[in-house]
Amino acid sequence: MRARNKKWVEGELELNEKLEREAKENKGKWNEIFENQNDIYLEIGCGKGDFVIGMAKENPNVNFVAMEKEPQVIAKAIRKLRELEEELDTDFNVLFILGDASEILEYFDIGEIKNIYLNFSDPWRNRKKWNKRRLTHRGFLEKYKTLLNGSGAIIQKTDNKDLFEFSLNEFAYVDLKLKNITFDLHNSDFEGNVVTEYEEKFSSQGMPIYRAEAWVRE
Amino acid sequence: MRARNKKWVEGELELNEKLEREAKENKGKWNEIFENQNDIYLEIGCGKGDFVIGMAKENPNVNFVAMEKEPQVIAKAIRKLRELEEELDTDFNVLFILGDASEILEYFDIGEIKNIYLNFSDPWRNRKKWNKRRLTHRGFLEKYKTLLNGSGAIIQKTDNKDLFEFSLNEFAYVDLKLKNITFDLHNSDFEGNVVTEYEEKFSSQGMPIYRAEAWVRE
Repeated sequence: MRARNKKWVEGELELNEKLEREAKENKGKWNEIFENQNDIYLEIGCGKGDFVIGMAKENPNVNFVAMEKEPQVIAKAIRKLRELEEELDTDFNVLFILGDASEILEYFDIGEIKNIYLNFSDPWRNRKKWNKRRLTHRGFLEKYKTLLNGSGAIIQKTDNKDLFEFSLNEFAYVDLKLKNITFDLHNSDFEGNVVTEYEEKFSSQGMPIYRAEAWVRE
Repeated sequence: MRARNKKWVEGELELNEKLEREAKENKGKWNEIFENQNDIYLEIGCGKGDFVIGMAKENPNVNFVAMEKEPQVIAKAIRKLRELEEELDTDFNVLFILGDASEILEYFDIGEIKNIYLNFSDPWRNRKKWNKRRLTHRGFLEKYKTLLNGSGAIIQKTDNKDLFEFSLNEFAYVDLKLKNITFDLHNSDFEGNVVTEYEEKFSSQGMPIYRAEAWVRE
């Protein structure tokens, strides 16, 4: 983060009630925070927020938590949401966490989440020593599985073929049930896709977008 | 089949003891026919036989049955095997069936097969009305599942992305456990691959070969 941005980012983060700085205290209490009993969808690595905001607009009866580890990135997502809320004079059910996926079990309780979205996660390099850092590595998946309730899914989109191949194997390894695998989302039958900022860019360059759902077994 | 080939094909088929013309009578008795209790691997759509013959050379303690519906194609596979057997003065555990996958339950009994190989199966056209003809359609998979014993797998290789995407979804749908999914077999860690005649051709043109294993649950 460059110094001239730093002040703006900090101000943005501190002022914004959408950011759950003390989010670990919310573990097991997210529905209380949202003040309803609706399902909670979690996006890990929300970037600038296009996906989670788009999903929240289309799904008023769902609660969204968006996690991002980069302060300057999440600040943009928060500003985007706040501006849209002002423009539409409405309040979306979106909360942000500035945090890292490796600590996810400190943020959420067993069964507290319905769906987890992983959009254009860092593929790292295609070298085995980095595989553990991928957000679909079995180490992460075992954590996600404890958070999902009995009918939930992990839903991945990526432009990276290696990451997608890796993810399918990992999903299968931890015995999640695969559904709706597509190697070219934008030329598939899938309806209701909410596009992320990366997806917009890659897809406009003609690159295929891969998508899969990995469901917990009831 | 052109007329000038027909005579050769018929002669080839009739003379060859490797072809089980009355194979439906062998249902439940394949190990008797092979005169051993070794595992039986089935290739559906063996083409000119490169794969099954290569596998048989490398796996003397496995029995192989290769099924093909085209007489002029299976005749070439049989001739290739016979010539190799003469050349090496050995007898491989390979039997051929001139038959169609749709009748597979008439050829084999429940649990009689260990692994089923589907190599470069016809992808048909990417139109929904033809999906039922694909050898990885759930209709076929349910039949294969009854033939596989409790620790077997269906193993697919293809150069066709659409067919592969379709197959992964179908494998998952019938609740087979996916393993070793690769989007580029020849640039993967997979060892011991036996190359088919199609694979040789496509791979030499730089096309990626897709491969996956779908295991029955024990």
